Amino acid sequence: MSKIRPYKKALDYSYTIGVFPTLELLTHKPGQTQMVFISNKASTNTGVIKIKSLCEQHNIPFIYSDTTVGKLAQADNAYVVGVFSKYFPDISDIANHVTLVNPDDSGNLGTICRTMLAFGFKDLAVIKPAVDIFNPKTIRASMGAIFQLNFSYFDRLEDYRKQFKHALYLFVTDSVKTFDTIEFSAPYSLVFGNEGAGLSRNAQAVGQKVAIPQSTAVDSLNLAVSAGIVLYKLRQV
Amino acid sequence: MSKIRPYKKALDYSYTIGVFPTLELLTHKPGQTQMVFISNKASTNTGVIKIKSLCEQHNIPFIYSDTTVGKLAQADNAYVVGVFSKYFPDISDIANHVTLVNPDDSGNLGTICRTMLAFGFKDLAVIKPAVDIFNPKTIRASMGAIFQLNFSYFDRLEDYRKQFKHALYLFVTDSVKTFDTIEFSAPYSLVFGNEGAGLSRNAQAVGQKVAIPQSTAVDSLNLAVSAGIVLYKLRQV
Repeated sequence: MSKIRPYKKALDYSYTIGVFPTLELLTHKPGQTQMVFISNKASTNTGVIKIKSLCEQHNIPFIYSDTTVGKLAQADNAYVVGVFSKYFPDISDIANHVTLVNPDDSGNLGTICRTMLAFGFKDLAVIKPAVDIFNPKTIRASMGAIFQLNFSYFDRLEDYRKQFKHALYLFVTDSVKTFDTIEFSAPYSLVFGNEGAGLSRNAQAVGQKVAIPQSTAVDSLNLAVSAGIVLYKLRQV
Repeated sequence: MSKIRPYKKALDYSYTIGVFPTLELLTHKPGQTQMVFISNKASTNTGVIKIKSLCEQHNIPFIYSDTTVGKLAQADNAYVVGVFSKYFPDISDIANHVTLVNPDDSGNLGTICRTMLAFGFKDLAVIKPAVDIFNPKTIRASMGAIFQLNFSYFDRLEDYRKQFKHALYLFVTDSVKTFDTIEFSAPYSLVFGNEGAGLSRNAQAVGQKVAIPQSTAVDSLNLAVSAGIVLYKLRQV
């Protein structure tokens, strides 16, 4: 990288903002880590000490710079920023998947990554258009969980289906079948639609529609909450 | 109200930003609604037509003003804003409760309100310091669900416990008991701690500690996801 600039999707590197995501980066993807910036205002807590020690262990530059941290962390009020090269992990042919169609909220995407890891799901397919998994906001919402996941973007749901023969379970609000009464046949893919629009009629035709039982008093659940309920029920831990 | 100004906690009124939350306001709390502002850019979709008709039915002023909507909706890019007087609903003595100790993210608070309503929980206790349930961001994340809930703020968890004799179930990450193996004795209160700090040691002493089974690969789940998993399992719909 030539010089430090605010994150953009087109860059081939990104940032971890804060102690926790930076620790996860250094622990699980040290080979991708370019350097770590730390503010002079950072207290020398256990997290910061661990970060320094991991940097030394892997020969990663560890640089004090209040201005760089301030510029990159922006409103986040964090004292540590990691810089890493983007990478493109393949998703497994045999493991169960989570497939997100057109997610448009980086907080939701990150939260779903965190929840996947908590319940033993390691493989995430994302159908475009979609929010950027390497956006520092996504990484922060994931608490660094993305560094322990495999993920792949696809231009269309069709492209994903050509590559993987997983049984598709499509989460919708209007199915007569509820997910807690269904036998999921592995390998499967749990498919969730966009926050506002849900899954299109075309997408709904490619697999088994299932619903989460809920009151008619609400229109739908939050996307990350829906995924959380389903992943908990099917947990692989 | 004298004149329209950006939301502040100290005001005795607040705003619903967007069609959906404003419809929920007019449907469930028409008596609290002072007026509705609409932008000239709003398409006359079904939602807007319903809003106009509810305003007429309840004699609520319905005012076209691009500047007012722009000022109040800010980055939200919404075309409808409702104005309502704050109100203070009591929570039930006999129904099961959700109790949030020091929640500090308005998105989480709103998402939990939405999830509560989806699973038939109507009574929410919030222990201060805590984010403001009437903040338009909370209302939006709730999709207007707060207008169908009862909620009460308490200065301390002790004050809540003096008033209600509910069995307390405290969600923590380090309990040997997991919530899916436990018999919950009603009326109960499901108690969740702060996003970062969790429940304090003192708070953990006042009831039954329970955990959501999860991998050790993550530190914890997102607060709204945790609540969603528990509320789904104990759903009353």
